[in-house]
Amino acid sequence: MPSLSQPLPPLSKDEYKQRVRELRTELVQLQHQVRKRKKPVIIVIAGDDRSGRHETINALSSWMDPRFLSINAYGPSQHEDDTRPFFWRFWRDLPAAGQIAIYLRDWTSSSLVQYLNGEISEKKLRKREQYIRNFEKKHTDDGALMIKCWLHISEEKLRERVAEVSDTPFFDKKDALALKNYPEAMKAIQQTIDATSTHDNHWYVINGDDDRNRNLQVGEIIRNQLQLWLSNGDREPEPMLAETYPSERININMDPEPEENRPDKKECKKKLKKLQTTLREQVVMLQKQGIPICIVFEGWDAAGKGGAVRRLVAPLDAGFYRIKPVAKPSEDEYARNYMWRFWREVPRNGEMVIFDRSWYGRVLVERVEGFASEKEWQRAFKEINDFEEQLTIHNAVVIKFWINISKEEQLRRFQERENTEYKKYKITEEDYRNRNRWDDYVLAVEDMIERTSTEEAPWSVINTDFKDKARVMVLETVVEAFKKKLDK
Amino acid sequence: MPSLSQPLPPLSKDEYKQRVRELRTELVQLQHQVRKRKKPVIIVIAGDDRSGRHETINALSSWMDPRFLSINAYGPSQHEDDTRPFFWRFWRDLPAAGQIAIYLRDWTSSSLVQYLNGEISEKKLRKREQYIRNFEKKHTDDGALMIKCWLHISEEKLRERVAEVSDTPFFDKKDALALKNYPEAMKAIQQTIDATSTHDNHWYVINGDDDRNRNLQVGEIIRNQLQLWLSNGDREPEPMLAETYPSERININMDPEPEENRPDKKECKKKLKKLQTTLREQVVMLQKQGIPICIVFEGWDAAGKGGAVRRLVAPLDAGFYRIKPVAKPSEDEYARNYMWRFWREVPRNGEMVIFDRSWYGRVLVERVEGFASEKEWQRAFKEINDFEEQLTIHNAVVIKFWINISKEEQLRRFQERENTEYKKYKITEEDYRNRNRWDDYVLAVEDMIERTSTEEAPWSVINTDFKDKARVMVLETVVEAFKKKLDK
Repeated sequence: MPSLSQPLPPLSKDEYKQRVRELRTELVQLQHQVRKRKKPVIIVIAGDDRSGRHETINALSSWMDPRFLSINAYGPSQHEDDTRPFFWRFWRDLPAAGQIAIYLRDWTSSSLVQYLNGEISEKKLRKREQYIRNFEKKHTDDGALMIKCWLHISEEKLRERVAEVSDTPFFDKKDALALKNYPEAMKAIQQTIDATSTHDNHWYVINGDDDRNRNLQVGEIIRNQLQLWLSNGDREPEPMLAETYPSERININMDPEPEENRPDKKECKKKLKKLQTTLREQVVMLQKQGIPICIVFEGWDAAGKGGAVRRLVAPLDAGFYRIKPVAKPSEDEYARNYMWRFWREVPRNGEMVIFDRSWYGRVLVERVEGFASEKEWQRAFKEINDFEEQLTIHNAVVIKFWINISKEEQLRRFQERENTEYKKYKITEEDYRNRNRWDDYVLAVEDMIERTSTEEAPWSVINTDFKDKARVMVLETVVEAFKKKLDK
Repeated sequence: MPSLSQPLPPLSKDEYKQRVRELRTELVQLQHQVRKRKKPVIIVIAGDDRSGRHETINALSSWMDPRFLSINAYGPSQHEDDTRPFFWRFWRDLPAAGQIAIYLRDWTSSSLVQYLNGEISEKKLRKREQYIRNFEKKHTDDGALMIKCWLHISEEKLRERVAEVSDTPFFDKKDALALKNYPEAMKAIQQTIDATSTHDNHWYVINGDDDRNRNLQVGEIIRNQLQLWLSNGDREPEPMLAETYPSERININMDPEPEENRPDKKECKKKLKKLQTTLREQVVMLQKQGIPICIVFEGWDAAGKGGAVRRLVAPLDAGFYRIKPVAKPSEDEYARNYMWRFWREVPRNGEMVIFDRSWYGRVLVERVEGFASEKEWQRAFKEINDFEEQLTIHNAVVIKFWINISKEEQLRRFQERENTEYKKYKITEEDYRNRNRWDDYVLAVEDMIERTSTEEAPWSVINTDFKDKARVMVLETVVEAFKKKLDK
């Protein structure tokens, strides 16, 4: 353990009181400055068993203004956590801009517990460390402050504390185990702490043997980090390294499809029916196996996303799927990391969620319209790949459609909409504005596919000017992907 | 079944198409008017098995604008539903103002399924019908539009449909059962439909034998109800009947507590420690038994709610409880029924949630400051009792504290806060504004206790000017309530 974990000389009660008095005044004032900063603060209090984490959190929460502070503690993992990707619950409880959240039993310590209990292999733990670095970077790149404290206690002190409670109801059989495995656990902890201490997000290791010293040190670290963060402007995220992209670049601009390609309506209907029957059978199996399914629909205005979605769900039981239309974020959503609202909607095991537009808005409309800064949308490619990887390692099927039509066909459909009473509402000035930026969108779409079409979460581009054909192609793609999953 | 359930003459394809074309134009236009009405629309599509509910929902969702429509379908009940009160998931998915939500497998049909599967007794079903009436009334009193359609099919048609699928993968063993139990199920359905058809929220029973007729009828009912609702002003809720209140009226204005009552600090500390030890033991048992716990703290400004909460949680594992500070609603919360945000936070089985201020804001600050209309806060007493009953019938312990101090003691504490550096942030002009309305608050608090102190969810008034004593009294009350629960 780093030198910080060495015990400090004990503090007298009076000195402690005096320093706490100063500290809490400062903390409360800092909290009010955080409110104005419009970015969240994420504090992690992790540590060894019996290291006094809980007492320290109680102290912090008595020193700070509870209106702008939330404590996210996680008990034994809940069924609703287990049926979703590992990071889901931490995302769900993310503080809003101007808020401070303290996490107890955070992503790092939970991973270590899983490893020490034999629930995940060492290889998985190493992989998890990478995900942790990505997770934390995502938030700090976005302007959040992250402060991570690891409370350590010496073997001697642990022995002492366990002895103190050994005949009381507060004794836990985990205590005996912690004592027995102390050397082994410390080795694992040290390794994970090293692996998750990055330039931007490093761990403070604090000796937890003495209560007063521990509480004060944690409080003072938080104060110092808040002061530093508040006095600096937004941190410059580390520059992106030149990257190789997961996919080839494809040309998205398609020529109008010749009339002779028009499919036979009856033939299409027959195919569709057959595919829907297969789909329904597959879905029973997928549900039984508890496989989560995530399907994304992106595409040009009037490309026929809605119609394709309806043909897809027509054979399915409505209790199995949810359709999530994505529009501009609400106030609560806007106050948090861009990915927050999508994390909240990820499918449970055995559930299918269809996103009608999605997180790709960041690199499409937000990029083209300038709602996201260049840095933000550039960063988004990697963040999105990471998000989708969290889904696929949780055994999800991820299918992403770009519904493509030619520019000429789009105009034809716009005009058709304008001339059909019940379709008029679908066409607004915005559609024409978007159409005027066709070439900007082409660039954005081509970048998007090149950079986010991964092996486990590939893009499927549906290239046709004929709706009936598009719907069949969508069904074929889904059936194919489900077959691949079920054959595994 | 009412006469509506009689089959209509079949519609020709052309006539259907023609009427659908008109209908969808109207529906989309109505949706845009709903946006401006700033109230939600709740549509229930329930019905017999194989009655075509799913097909009708597919039709509706293709006719309407998906951006302002959500489909809340519930599959087999999930673990996260089962560990919370019955109505939790329906509250969670409530549409925001200006939005329309269609519920499939709603509260009524789910209750009937539970009953027909033998999961709840007939007595419980009768009780549930009462809760359903309360639930629906709460929303329509609040200005929401509720439209309930029950799709019925004849035994003959059911037999036909089951035969059609009997050799296909779409056959479900529930189908055979539905056929076998048809007469019995119809009797139960009829009774529940009658019991949940109120003056304001009655069921439309639609014959589901013919697809086109069924889809059109449901769509046209929705159109007609939307038109009616939009052309009328807010409906006048039914007047409240003269009520007897669950509790005695008590006098909340207390005299300053004489100095000779001041408790011995050391003695208090000792008592507190002992109570905390007991509490910790109890909590292990409560958690094991999966009992949810809900503790509410209300009280005068500076009464010491925060300090009492901290003493209460000090001995507990942070994974077991959540503290939920309640401030003014966010935009998303404001767009929904007042109780929505509290429903979302109800404790899971085996979890404790502490509300630092609560839903009682409606009958305290919102009443006194005029943020809620008289009708709204008058209605709230019953709505709150109903909410808490939903918790207690789900086996929760509900404890509610009014932390009481004398007006003189409040002033002393305000001044102390102003003179203590780290407490200054706690005192604002608002506190003095509230203090100036002391008498209004007294009336509000006395009304509140009289009308919402029920046997299962009683108020505990902590009457003392001495903080140490108050903290002991809070712990004593909690320990006593837990003991009572565990002894059951």
